[in-house]
Amino acid sequence: MFPMKPRIFDELRAIVGGRCDASEAVRLQHAQDESSYGVIGMPDVVVFPESIEEIEQVVRLAYERDMPIIPFGAGSSVEGHVLPVRGGVTVSLTRMNQILDICAEDMTVTVQAGVTRKQLNAALRDSGLFFPVDPGADATIGGMCATSASGTTTVRYGTMKENVLAMVVVLADGQAMELGRGVRKSSAGYDLAKLFIGSEGTLGIIASVTLRVHPLPNEVAAAVCTFQSLEDAVNVAIQVKQAGIAIARMELLNAETIGMVNRYRKADYVEAATLFVEFHGRKEELECQVAEFREIATDNRCLGFDWATRPEDRTKLWEARHHAYFAAIQSRPGARAISTDVCVPISKLLEVILESENDARQVGIPYFLVGHVGDGNFHFGYLIDPASHAERLAAERLNEAMVYRAIRLGGTCSGEHGIGLHKKEFLRRQVGDRGIDLMRAIKKAVDPKWLFNPMKVVDPQT
Amino acid sequence: MFPMKPRIFDELRAIVGGRCDASEAVRLQHAQDESSYGVIGMPDVVVFPESIEEIEQVVRLAYERDMPIIPFGAGSSVEGHVLPVRGGVTVSLTRMNQILDICAEDMTVTVQAGVTRKQLNAALRDSGLFFPVDPGADATIGGMCATSASGTTTVRYGTMKENVLAMVVVLADGQAMELGRGVRKSSAGYDLAKLFIGSEGTLGIIASVTLRVHPLPNEVAAAVCTFQSLEDAVNVAIQVKQAGIAIARMELLNAETIGMVNRYRKADYVEAATLFVEFHGRKEELECQVAEFREIATDNRCLGFDWATRPEDRTKLWEARHHAYFAAIQSRPGARAISTDVCVPISKLLEVILESENDARQVGIPYFLVGHVGDGNFHFGYLIDPASHAERLAAERLNEAMVYRAIRLGGTCSGEHGIGLHKKEFLRRQVGDRGIDLMRAIKKAVDPKWLFNPMKVVDPQT
Repeated sequence: MFPMKPRIFDELRAIVGGRCDASEAVRLQHAQDESSYGVIGMPDVVVFPESIEEIEQVVRLAYERDMPIIPFGAGSSVEGHVLPVRGGVTVSLTRMNQILDICAEDMTVTVQAGVTRKQLNAALRDSGLFFPVDPGADATIGGMCATSASGTTTVRYGTMKENVLAMVVVLADGQAMELGRGVRKSSAGYDLAKLFIGSEGTLGIIASVTLRVHPLPNEVAAAVCTFQSLEDAVNVAIQVKQAGIAIARMELLNAETIGMVNRYRKADYVEAATLFVEFHGRKEELECQVAEFREIATDNRCLGFDWATRPEDRTKLWEARHHAYFAAIQSRPGARAISTDVCVPISKLLEVILESENDARQVGIPYFLVGHVGDGNFHFGYLIDPASHAERLAAERLNEAMVYRAIRLGGTCSGEHGIGLHKKEFLRRQVGDRGIDLMRAIKKAVDPKWLFNPMKVVDPQT
Repeated sequence: MFPMKPRIFDELRAIVGGRCDASEAVRLQHAQDESSYGVIGMPDVVVFPESIEEIEQVVRLAYERDMPIIPFGAGSSVEGHVLPVRGGVTVSLTRMNQILDICAEDMTVTVQAGVTRKQLNAALRDSGLFFPVDPGADATIGGMCATSASGTTTVRYGTMKENVLAMVVVLADGQAMELGRGVRKSSAGYDLAKLFIGSEGTLGIIASVTLRVHPLPNEVAAAVCTFQSLEDAVNVAIQVKQAGIAIARMELLNAETIGMVNRYRKADYVEAATLFVEFHGRKEELECQVAEFREIATDNRCLGFDWATRPEDRTKLWEARHHAYFAAIQSRPGARAISTDVCVPISKLLEVILESENDARQVGIPYFLVGHVGDGNFHFGYLIDPASHAERLAAERLNEAMVYRAIRLGGTCSGEHGIGLHKKEFLRRQVGDRGIDLMRAIKKAVDPKWLFNPMKVVDPQT
């Protein structure tokens, strides 16, 4: 095994002790994420720092030696964010998993970057508070900052951009710096914390994060509502937003995806366009919101309306939504999903979805559709045989067509998954060559040797 | 008059025709803002472009000639943002005042940068929508982006950061670029729109902005509530936030400021710490919120509680809040206010306010206090005799003590006024030399010749 170890190994070991690993198994484990790339490069070594000081020393050493530095959280990226395409030192934040402070009075928490959102919510349980951003995967808070994550509750509670107040990052000089402040708002110069949200590990390593948290809702009500057509369901979403109903979640599944859930769970959900909704508030507020939602749904020819308030009933009601991804994967034995997401002005949502469905049907690639429809954001997952080059190519073409359609209609190439390796050309299409140049100039200003997570978001000028 | 005209005058005239002015009067008018600096430099010339193309040409010319470029909106800055300390071309955006698009379905609007918030809300009146960010002054939307403005409704609707989706800016190369997208969320690379919010004209000229707008509330209820002490009032604010009451405004005035209003308006408000609150929603939601607010206020020894729902009654009820600034100025004949603002974690708010009040009383400088207390943000205005150097110095020392206190307790040197000329040293204290270096590196990357609004936010390395 010794010949495998890079020259830097002993120096890293002097910094992090035994938490430094150049074994094939650990390197391989950090050469993959949830994208469909598979292994396309290996880190030279993986370190597991437990303090900011250790991260600082690791960065200083790697920067001196011109080695790429790849921050790694839960590895739940679907766009190849953490793939070590140029080798280098992968810095796993998983042992930076301490909750540093919970301040109920200020409704803020400070956590190390490797804390996961479920871990955080478990720690908050007794405080009457919760952290709402829910991208599905049990991602780390650092990773969620890096990709500007959002999810099912964003329609009410916002994305990471609205919920991160401050962070400590380790920069190219191997020194930590606080960005932002743990206050509700600040007009103190350039908003560097916001710049790091969505920076995907390319500007530095996020070591800790101060977040807003929210009071647990007094009551929660959930409902599932089926419609004759996707159009009706999308119109409900638009009208709910226009009415100013403070809906907490509003998720769309199409009839085909419900069918996949039925076969996977041996269930008998009505196979129709379906909205899964959730309301948070006091009893009187909920009643008011639910009554108004009912009216809007009825006006849009809703077929049926199931409703639950007890936690166990709500979970059961939302089961189809929770199982959508696995049901889809299982619907085609051996399949792998190429997941993608776009976000468009909500007035353009139906057009983008219907045309993208039509494309997929014509090509004959099965897919699932899950939409954070109140935000104009939705996911397609193309279910391909990973061994078939032709299918992969066809799915990528479908993805491309959908992304370009979204951009053409004023939308963005990614609502929440980020750019990573996969969407760099889409980003260029969206922001233009000058937009890329501006991002490059900022990248270069912050990471002069271009060592933080190279090949992600933007590439250096060739 | 001809000798006054800079050499560039004729070339600018070729771009904007008659909308180019080098007269003493117009230059003087653009040499001042609402700060207490007075005139400390004059622009060489003022231009009033009416299109992005004109802005592009003006920037190209000024950049070629190494002339500073100062974007100018309503001139309502209180920290010296628009003062042309190095001369140059002041670019007034006031004629870029077209509302370009109102999309009710997407609840977005696109406006030229010179549109003011009142103009926007007048244009929105029939759409059932409104733009909530309210800094008091009738500032331009471009100016509000540049300083990351917020105000009385931020406690519910957020700051500019949460309400700006995209903008078109003219950069150093004299070309416009779209930053961000008109969608609810995006994870597409570095968030350049957010970087420009709070950039104070130092990175480029904001030419147009796409904003989120919100449904007009079905019902509005307002209340005024007096307390035995500031402590009780602040505790109410903390508890209201913790209870998750979606309060729309929550403003604090201290007893002395209420006294100033009484003398100015010959009114008889109870001279006590007072919370002005407002609730937005459906009737049932309001009732629920108001009942809960009442309970919290009562638990904190509230002295009295006035309540109104009709627009005219609400206006009357809130009169003391609206008149606070002018009442304060009038309370001391010939006085000028040095206005400042800080934002701290709400748990530290009382401490910062009480110590800052104590300082001011000891020094004997009269002041007023107005707080966006739900956000931990408040304003002090020191009422000085503008002719007295000693008073100005004493007020600046009080300001400094308050800002350093806020920073020490985890707060920010500015919650909403920005840095401008006045708070650069405070910003350095807050973010450190390395923080300033990072901002400098970004400034240099975007504005290589350092010509956009020089001497604001950060200075070049000397």
